[in-house]
Amino acid sequence: MTHFVFFNGSIVPQAEARLSVLDRGFLFADGIYEFSAVLGGRLVDHEAHMARFERSLREVQIKNPFSVEEWTRFGRELISRNGLVEGFLYMQVTRGAPEQRDFAFPSASTSPTSVMFTQARNILHNPNIDAGVRVITVPDLRWSRRDIKSISMLPQVLAKQAAAEAGAFEAWLVEDGYVTEGSSSTAFLITREHQIVTRPLSRSILPGITRQAILRLASERDLSIVERPFTVQEAYQAAEAFLTSATSFVLPVVAINANVVGDGRPGEKTRRLRELYLAAAHASAG
Amino acid sequence: MTHFVFFNGSIVPQAEARLSVLDRGFLFADGIYEFSAVLGGRLVDHEAHMARFERSLREVQIKNPFSVEEWTRFGRELISRNGLVEGFLYMQVTRGAPEQRDFAFPSASTSPTSVMFTQARNILHNPNIDAGVRVITVPDLRWSRRDIKSISMLPQVLAKQAAAEAGAFEAWLVEDGYVTEGSSSTAFLITREHQIVTRPLSRSILPGITRQAILRLASERDLSIVERPFTVQEAYQAAEAFLTSATSFVLPVVAINANVVGDGRPGEKTRRLRELYLAAAHASAG
Repeated sequence: MTHFVFFNGSIVPQAEARLSVLDRGFLFADGIYEFSAVLGGRLVDHEAHMARFERSLREVQIKNPFSVEEWTRFGRELISRNGLVEGFLYMQVTRGAPEQRDFAFPSASTSPTSVMFTQARNILHNPNIDAGVRVITVPDLRWSRRDIKSISMLPQVLAKQAAAEAGAFEAWLVEDGYVTEGSSSTAFLITREHQIVTRPLSRSILPGITRQAILRLASERDLSIVERPFTVQEAYQAAEAFLTSATSFVLPVVAINANVVGDGRPGEKTRRLRELYLAAAHASAG
Repeated sequence: MTHFVFFNGSIVPQAEARLSVLDRGFLFADGIYEFSAVLGGRLVDHEAHMARFERSLREVQIKNPFSVEEWTRFGRELISRNGLVEGFLYMQVTRGAPEQRDFAFPSASTSPTSVMFTQARNILHNPNIDAGVRVITVPDLRWSRRDIKSISMLPQVLAKQAAAEAGAFEAWLVEDGYVTEGSSSTAFLITREHQIVTRPLSRSILPGITRQAILRLASERDLSIVERPFTVQEAYQAAEAFLTSATSFVLPVVAINANVVGDGRPGEKTRRLRELYLAAAHASAG
């Protein structure tokens, strides 16, 4: 079956979407990306993802070539053409492919490059949900504007690879003794006093869309939640831990480095938060 | 005239070198680059650039698909096919284009993507040499492994654009009050006591190839040179300042932010170092 991608305004077979070697996304990581989970062929929390997409593009002054409505319309068409039921829709815009390589922005006549593709992924019945996952910690080597969802991600690649080589699912990034976030997810713990803890938003972390939903759902249910940084040591002592991301939703963390979290099994509160998020995701999907 | 590029082992018309939208260089900035100046159709200090290229690739565990000899042979052929007399030869390798987007490294069956292209640039008779250039200072937002010449360069793009918008040639990056380096060049000053000062090598800066040549040339001529960090304030008070890079060679800096350096004209010692480097560049070009 032909796999389609969205490329600069058209939906084309993937083999026909070919980039110039001078694309600034390829030469300078001069681009922004986003993605939304797809459940039952429908986009989850897509509006919030698109709002973050637009914010990231503004922060680096890349003109968004399409409106949110156009991205969404093309995105839905792509999901349909590819017959995607469960997985994600990926979107990226770069500052285009001028004729010359130069660090500074090209002239306004250079059009941004726009890409969307879909990828199947097992979100609902992932075995990691029941078993929980292990994370390792590595130093956070990233740049200072992690609130921008840019494609400048070599540090994240190296962190995730370190996790993979250690047989772990994710790497939690550590700066000045505190966990910032995972290489592609938000980090949470639940203390023995039943408090849900996650780092407050700043330029040090990406404003997670699933994180935002969890905070809202927890507060609606009077669950005690506090936004503050936590140390690796504190995470070791936690009653429960979990991570959130657009495609993992809520995933229990049962070990951090060589330390078992709680009794080494997914925690009850984490299960509850996952169920709450799942219900909200299904309800909001469109 | 058709412009050629090197693409995965072949020299092809630029329009025929087209990348997959799943290339990890495009999605994750998961790649390494390098470039050598070209003078009179010959490569300047190419061996040192290739050594740094190989080191960077090793540091991020990307397998170099070609030997130094192959890169050089193809590079020379490309220069010749494009009739390049003065400018640069650009080289890049990414971790390739697997079928799925995933942060961790793809399986060994995914071949790296290799690209070379040439670009004309006025190196020898650039008007900036006689007039000198202005630099601004901006915070250094980059990641912690600046010794690796990766394409993960959005912070450098934003710094260079800030310079361009301020009518300056370059942005000097500042961390903890000290200049690390320029967004795409090495920063030097010459004190009123005739000492040439540049930051020592560490993970905080790229090991500049032209920097290395300048240190060697200065020490051979008993010029007083010291490797230590310097502050912005100290740069304001310097007798002379300059920057070095593969395509700028040695370029006088005559103003830093609103502060004139020395008497606001290119300094004598800077001119002398440029001449020394030019002679060495011509002598070593091959």
